[in-house]
Amino acid sequence: MLIDVARAASLLRENDDILVLCHSHPDGDTLGCGFGLMHMLQKLNKRCRLECADIIVKKYQFMTEGLCDCGDFEPKFIVAVDVADIKLLSDASAQKYEGRIDLCIDHHGSNLHYAKNLLLDASAAACAEIFCELADELGVEITPKIADCLYTGISTDTGCFKFSNTTSHTHVLAARLIDCGADKAEINRVFFETKSRSYAALERLALDSMRMYFDGRCAVITITQEMFRKSGSNDGETDAIPSLARQIEGVLAGVTLKESKDGSFKVSLRTHAPMDASKICKRLGGGGHTRAAGCRIHAPCEEVERLVLEQIKTELDEIDTTE
Amino acid sequence: MLIDVARAASLLRENDDILVLCHSHPDGDTLGCGFGLMHMLQKLNKRCRLECADIIVKKYQFMTEGLCDCGDFEPKFIVAVDVADIKLLSDASAQKYEGRIDLCIDHHGSNLHYAKNLLLDASAAACAEIFCELADELGVEITPKIADCLYTGISTDTGCFKFSNTTSHTHVLAARLIDCGADKAEINRVFFETKSRSYAALERLALDSMRMYFDGRCAVITITQEMFRKSGSNDGETDAIPSLARQIEGVLAGVTLKESKDGSFKVSLRTHAPMDASKICKRLGGGGHTRAAGCRIHAPCEEVERLVLEQIKTELDEIDTTE
Repeated sequence: MLIDVARAASLLRENDDILVLCHSHPDGDTLGCGFGLMHMLQKLNKRCRLECADIIVKKYQFMTEGLCDCGDFEPKFIVAVDVADIKLLSDASAQKYEGRIDLCIDHHGSNLHYAKNLLLDASAAACAEIFCELADELGVEITPKIADCLYTGISTDTGCFKFSNTTSHTHVLAARLIDCGADKAEINRVFFETKSRSYAALERLALDSMRMYFDGRCAVITITQEMFRKSGSNDGETDAIPSLARQIEGVLAGVTLKESKDGSFKVSLRTHAPMDASKICKRLGGGGHTRAAGCRIHAPCEEVERLVLEQIKTELDEIDTTE
Repeated sequence: MLIDVARAASLLRENDDILVLCHSHPDGDTLGCGFGLMHMLQKLNKRCRLECADIIVKKYQFMTEGLCDCGDFEPKFIVAVDVADIKLLSDASAQKYEGRIDLCIDHHGSNLHYAKNLLLDASAAACAEIFCELADELGVEITPKIADCLYTGISTDTGCFKFSNTTSHTHVLAARLIDCGADKAEINRVFFETKSRSYAALERLALDSMRMYFDGRCAVITITQEMFRKSGSNDGETDAIPSLARQIEGVLAGVTLKESKDGSFKVSLRTHAPMDASKICKRLGGGGHTRAAGCRIHAPCEEVERLVLEQIKTELDEIDTTE
């Protein structure tokens, strides 16, 4: 059932022993919302716990400062944040929580309505935007720490206000969060102005792998497990890679194929208008936004690339016909 | 004489045949202010012309759309925008306009007060922030085109709201400019999400040249005329290079030495706290902001590097002593 912010706030206020679920391969938005919510709930003296299928890397640790460990408890209310599809929790968690998620707060238009209650704002550039309003409805003051969490969600999901999803409302909220004490300089330094030496090495390898297709309108980057070994980098510091392919002048579709430990590939697609990334990824079993979407394909690299290029070709042909 | 926005607006309103001066090696802020002001002045039916010592590259051309060519005229009022030092106009222009600049609108704390009237707001992240207020004082509506110019100034001078100079007020103004019709998605795509193939090649060469000093706390990049030839790139697309050196984890001072055609070097210094870039560059005959400053040195590359490293060493020693 679709609900509004006031109803979501009521549900959270009426319940206790709350489990907060973030999507796997967590990013700044799901964690910013997750930990931001945890801070809000603890201000309301509620027991809560956050779960994420993957390791939360060090650069997000500041979000947990000031949170109490509520110990182990049987959750009575389960909230998923920034999770468009229950499968994005991880296969195991999807099975475990199937039909049990009480509330989902999300900004993906592609949300599969798997939760009992869904607070969805597809116009929000980041899910964290919704949580600014939620804090007000909950009557929780946005502390500097909550501001840090939500600002991180907004800045990371908009490429620091660079992506086309950014609205004037996004800026208004950013201004408010800065006034509430968000340490934006430090957050932006960590997320946008810092490359570890290992990441810098990985980026070089990734750029070396770039292939161009369809008259330079599509660029494909591959990141293999071998590249992680060579560079000393890891899966937790690859957020910025998907943008690299789209950045080259003339590219409409930038594809990144990232090999997981199980040999499957996480496909990240970034597009420029009129290319619809969400449409392409949906056909490949994934989803996302118009300009940024993804899917996972269990196949060898060449086969994954072939499948993705096939769909991109179809889209490009359609664009050529329409023009 | 220091003046406020209302007085600056009066001066502009009282005068006609206005010459607008931008600094050499023009960036998005000086041009955004310059062309933004041109649009405002033409709305007020004034004759005006913009001068810049260097070529204005293609990506800024959108700023001139809708402007009339007022033909040649003897300027009766001269305004410099985002120009901290008259020498930044170019040596020839500095000589030509010495003592003749009626108004300077600037946001550099290091401004040398060379103009008859100075409107200075050193708290503004971009000079374009001041022009938002100026438009109001002039009673000129911020059209989509003016919004484009001013948004470009703000976004380029803040690294798209990423640099520490960004304030909540910067975001409030960005929100306003977006509501006035700034085509932020396209502007950000052009300035932050597009690398020409030649620039991408130059960036690789620049990164290849990176040397680390002082236990990884200083990184130096050199860009030579030879690299421009090799990559097919040019001086007009090097804005993003100075940030690269500072991005490596642990670096407090990122230095870029860019060789000009006359063999001199433009030094760009980007720092993290507590390193004061402005202080260092001032000692080398330049100036700028706390985290981003520059100077020009007429000497061979090795000598330029030695001079800059010497100053950085002094600063680092001071920091080590203080800690």
